[in-house]
Order: sequence, then structure tokens, then C-alpha cells
Amino acid sequence: MATIRVPDEVPSPAQDSETLNQAFRGWGTDEKAIIRVLGKRNGSQRKRIRESYREIYGKDLIDVLTSELSGDFMKAVVLWTYDPAERDARLANNVLNGKKKSIEKLKIIVEISCTTSPNHLIAVRKAYCSLFDLSLEEHIASSVPFPLAKVLVTLATSFRYDKDMADTEVATIEAGMLREAITAKQLDHDHVLYILGTRSIYQLRETFDVDGCPGDADLKSLLQMVILCIEFPEKHFAKVVRDSIEGFGTDEDSLTRGIVTRAEVDLMKARGEYYNMYNTSMDNAIIGDVSGDYKDFLLTLLGSNI
Amino acid sequence: MATIRVPDEVPSPAQDSETLNQAFRGWGTDEKAIIRVLGKRNGSQRKRIRESYREIYGKDLIDVLTSELSGDFMKAVVLWTYDPAERDARLANNVLNGKKKSIEKLKIIVEISCTTSPNHLIAVRKAYCSLFDLSLEEHIASSVPFPLAKVLVTLATSFRYDKDMADTEVATIEAGMLREAITAKQLDHDHVLYILGTRSIYQLRETFDVDGCPGDADLKSLLQMVILCIEFPEKHFAKVVRDSIEGFGTDEDSLTRGIVTRAEVDLMKARGEYYNMYNTSMDNAIIGDVSGDYKDFLLTLLGSNI
Repeated sequence: MATIRVPDEVPSPAQDSETLNQAFRGWGTDEKAIIRVLGKRNGSQRKRIRESYREIYGKDLIDVLTSELSGDFMKAVVLWTYDPAERDARLANNVLNGKKKSIEKLKIIVEISCTTSPNHLIAVRKAYCSLFDLSLEEHIASSVPFPLAKVLVTLATSFRYDKDMADTEVATIEAGMLREAITAKQLDHDHVLYILGTRSIYQLRETFDVDGCPGDADLKSLLQMVILCIEFPEKHFAKVVRDSIEGFGTDEDSLTRGIVTRAEVDLMKARGEYYNMYNTSMDNAIIGDVSGDYKDFLLTLLGSNI
Repeated sequence: MATIRVPDEVPSPAQDSETLNQAFRGWGTDEKAIIRVLGKRNGSQRKRIRESYREIYGKDLIDVLTSELSGDFMKAVVLWTYDPAERDARLANNVLNGKKKSIEKLKIIVEISCTTSPNHLIAVRKAYCSLFDLSLEEHIASSVPFPLAKVLVTLATSFRYDKDMADTEVATIEAGMLREAITAKQLDHDHVLYILGTRSIYQLRETFDVDGCPGDADLKSLLQMVILCIEFPEKHFAKVVRDSIEGFGTDEDSLTRGIVTRAEVDLMKARGEYYNMYNTSMDNAIIGDVSGDYKDFLLTLLGSNI
């Protein structure tokens, strides 16, 4: 369930564009107005605002937001304003273009591949080709070391059957195969990859039910995340938010990603899981950790009335 | 280039539906009328006819064609009338449901994966899920032995960048990697698969230019076909037609597949290649090998005026 709150009466895209344009004009920028407009519109509404803004003012709203705003607030608003498929393509591209492709960064590709719908993942791959002149899987295969590349390509190219059906017998057999691969420490075995990469989410949940969970450290950590993302995406995102604010300093990029990418998907559930897992509220944790317009924007996406 | 000839003035879908319905009525069926209508309409026109037929007569045109016609003629007309993505999904499903999945049959999946556009291949995978309640790659991984399954999954899940750009340096490096894998007889090496499965067609053509060509027998034969399909799809289809009519007896299913699936794509080129490769015309070869309505239908798709 989504957390954003769209008002009962939504202004036309042209009116919203005008409000935004007013907010950009003169000395200083009216950040509150930007939060009020963009933070309370769903994906298709934002898309129409971006189109309408271009029509009226001849500029890409993303470019204007980038130049008028700054810091983590700017990054969050821009990420939110992208079309979701373009957004994920850009998130993946940042990882693959990064000099240091740590396992933590690579997990963003697992996240995109395993917590979104099959049709969304295809849309991400299409966006990737048009934005970056190569395919997502080509970029992974040519820039990530094996066997991690193998796992990531398998997941990123999946188009899982997405109806709620599972074959218990198959689940038992495949749980056995997974267990065997774990015991033999052959986590990159082709059978493991094809089970995790081609079976439907529902079939896999049945398989994971049969079995416990897995046991090279990077590969293990990646596969554990695959399983978590598939089995409990909302727990995964509760963890993303928690990890980003826990301890000394904040990982704003991860926090933004967690909130922005799920605000229209299942952030309500992730918020519930957060409470169950950490015995404190996600909203309060965010309030205690970040500040200013950035904080207000994230809370708006979480459904608060700022 | 396509071979089918759409008349300058095309009747409305409702008129075509009526002509077809007339052809089905009474004793006997008017096969010539069916050829004249369906054999001279392109994909979107046939789609509209099928929709209109359902609206007017409350029946799926495919079902009526299946019951009114018979033999290879029926199979060819039905295959032609399907939406191209549904058609390829059904062709692949026939292979994967077959008890004996010979390497010749499995090559149909290579053909679908390597000779069609990235967007078409995605449409085939979507059609596969909605028609058969599992994903194409899931069906491959669970029913074809390794390492063939590995190659087929990699190809079937590809979404290649499809602009005409190639990096010569990458081509040289990857041609070297392919050569090495061939020498070491490690054709199922992950690097081979990711080169063949993720690089764009244009990049791969550059790579094959640098290198010669490859040399377990089934795997070799499959990969040679991958290369042929990618480098010269029209030569591949000339060969499909030739192999289907050569020697004793005809392989009507392959002949139908070769003509029907390419009549709107590149059959004109394949016909030219056929002449270059075998020093005889494809049309005459077909005329000499098959007969009746089936022959007339294939020739209509080849652009003849029957």
C-alpha cells in the first residue's frame, strides 16, 4: 500500500506547472510549494506535470529542479519526479558507472530486479537502452566480476510469471537443490540461478517455506538479499531505511531511494514492518535523523501533512 | 523486406469478416477466398479482422479456421492469423511441450530469440506467460537439459540494445575470448554466453567479423546457429526453407514456419539469398514440392498473384 496522499481535488497539470514555476521565480525558491505539489501527486500525475511544464515553459522540469534546489532535498525531489522506470534505470546506471562497485551498491540491482513487477522490470530495461546506449545486462556482464555478474544478469533479465500459483512438489524438489548447493558451497551453480531467476515469486516463496536459508561471502550476502527481496520486500525496505539512518551519520542516498521508490508501492507495509522489527516508528526515526526541506519532503511522501 | 502484397484498396475489417464467413458457409469451404483475404493483409489488418469477426459472429476466427480447414493448409493459415508474438510463443511452447526435444526443435527457440527485434522478443515472453501460465525461461530451464538450457535461457531473456553502433576494441577482445573458448572446447563458458546473449546484434556482427567461426556436438551446432541467425537472418531462413523441402519428403511445419514468420519481415531478402546459395528460385522449389491450397497460400505470402 502506498503512503502518499493525493488531495481529493487535484489541480490540472497546467495549474501545477504554474505553481511550480512561481516557486522557482525571483530570489530564493519556495521549497514548501514544491513539496506541496510534487509530494502529493502520483506517478501518472507527475508525468503529466512534467509534460505540461515542458509545453508551457519549454524546459525539462527535472533540469529546473536540479538547478533550483540543492543537496539531498534536490536529489530526492528529482528522483521522485522521474518516471519510475527511468528512475530505476538511472539508479542502476549510477551503480554500474561507479568506480567502486561494492557489494552494497550492487545490491541495488538485486533490489530493482526482485522487488518490482515483471512489467516494470522490462520497462526499466527499455529505459536503460534508450538512456544509456547499451543494455542493462550488457553493462552488468561487462563491468561486474563473475560470479556476481552471473547472478545479477539472471535476475535483471527475468520476466516472472506473476499469478499466485505454486506447485508444492516442485517447491520441495527445488528447496532440496538449494539446500544441496548451500551445503556444497556452490551458490553460483546454474540450477540455483535458474531457480532464483526464472521461477515466479509465488513459487519461490513456497520453496523458501520448505527450506531454511543459505550459508564466497559476497555471493552469499547477495543471495540472501535475493531471498529477502522476493519473500518479504517490505522487510527489505524497512531494513534499507534502518541501515541508512543507524549509527553515526546518515546514508541519504539509500534513505531517499527506500522512501522514493516505494512511496507508491508498499511503503505503508514497510512502515509497519519497521515498527515490528525495530520497535520504533519509521517516521520518528527519520525526524530524528534528517532535517529541513529534505525531512519535510520525505515525511510528505510518508503521508504526513506538513 | 516483406513479400506479401496488400491491395491498394483494402476492404474494411467488417467486409473481410463477411467474406470469410461466406467462405465458411454451406457445403465445402471456399479456400481461395480465404487465401485472397488473409494472405493479402498485414499483421495489424489481420488483427482487426480477428477482432471484427469476433464482434460480428461471436466466434474466434482461429477456432473457425481450425475446424473448417485441414492439414498443412490449415496449420499455415492459423499460424499466419495469430498475432506474431502469440505465434512465436505457441511455436516455442510446442517445442517445450514435445516429448522429444531434439536439437533441431530447440533451434526454433534460438531462431525466435536471435532473428527478431528486442521488443518483439519481450512481447513473445509476455504472450507466453498469459497463454501458458509459466514464463518461457522457466519452461526452458525446467524442461531442457544443461548446458543447452543455459544457452537458450540466456538468448530468450535478452533485450539487446538495437541501434547500429559497435565498439571495435570490444569486438577484438571478445572475438579473442570466443576463439579461446572454441579452442578449449568450453562453449558453455559464461563469458561466451554473456557475449552472445547481451551484446547488440551490431556489436556481435563486428565481433564475428574479427573472428572466424566456432568449432559436445549439440552445443556447437546450437551456437553456430546463434551466430548465423544474428549475422545473416535471411541466410538462416533460406536454409530453413531449403532443408524443409530437400531430399525425400517435405518438412511442412518448418516450411510453413519459415514462410509465415518472415513474410512480413525479410522474406524478400531470404528469397534472394536462396537464389545465391542454391542457384534456383525459392518459389519454384516450393511449387515443385507442395500442392493445392497449401501451395497457393505459401505463394500468396511470397507475393505471387494466384
